[in-house]
Amino acid sequence: MENCIFCRIIDGSIPSTCVYEDEDFKVIMDISPAAKGHVLILPKKHCADLLSIDKEVAEKALLLASKIANAQKKAFNCDGINLLQNSGEAAWQSVFHLHIHLIPRFKDDGIAVPWTHLEYAEGEAEEYAKKIRAFL
Amino acid sequence: MENCIFCRIIDGSIPSTCVYEDEDFKVIMDISPAAKGHVLILPKKHCADLLSIDKEVAEKALLLASKIANAQKKAFNCDGINLLQNSGEAAWQSVFHLHIHLIPRFKDDGIAVPWTHLEYAEGEAEEYAKKIRAFL
Repeated sequence: MENCIFCRIIDGSIPSTCVYEDEDFKVIMDISPAAKGHVLILPKKHCADLLSIDKEVAEKALLLASKIANAQKKAFNCDGINLLQNSGEAAWQSVFHLHIHLIPRFKDDGIAVPWTHLEYAEGEAEEYAKKIRAFL
Repeated sequence: MENCIFCRIIDGSIPSTCVYEDEDFKVIMDISPAAKGHVLILPKKHCADLLSIDKEVAEKALLLASKIANAQKKAFNCDGINLLQNSGEAAWQSVFHLHIHLIPRFKDDGIAVPWTHLEYAEGEAEEYAKKIRAFL
């Protein structure tokens, strides 16, 4: 969809830091992360949210989430992972293209949802992406 | 697993308010909900979390989550839904049997994660379950 920022990230017309890509999904670094290493799983086929999720996307997304979560755990030696999917503005969704958050967690990191947005220094998101890719 | 509270809820030896059940999953009302109408999707096959999720469970869980979320939306006329899966104690997991939270959301409901646990009055959880079941 032309006006969808995630469709434009998927087609490359808006740049992103890519962690993983296959026929059905693109996985990118969240640019306003809850924790450094926080990624978004984007299905390439546009749908708004969980309520309207495509059957094939639904069948593949959690397997991919597990694969990425395992890589995050190895990359960052984190203690846990939150998977979060927000459907609807009332549920904190701000881009209306289905996306799944995977947030690395550490004991007593104090993270809450909605989170305080962190910022990456120049090149830092790529460093984090590289660490995840090493375990994929 | 004998000492797993969710395995015992699945086999019926611990009571729960069931919203939906099939060969692979049991969906129950969360007894300490973030919002009334909050449910948990439990795969019948025990696994701890997203990191160790069974392939077949992963392939089916999001489709079921979409089905339940649509029923919650119709049942409660809510504005959104959060899907949350916590893997690891550092990520707020307290029962180590994979479960997916589906939380109905309303504009300006003030819910945050981790949430303040609400309590159902006697019979009230069943009333909420009944409303969801009407749309399944």
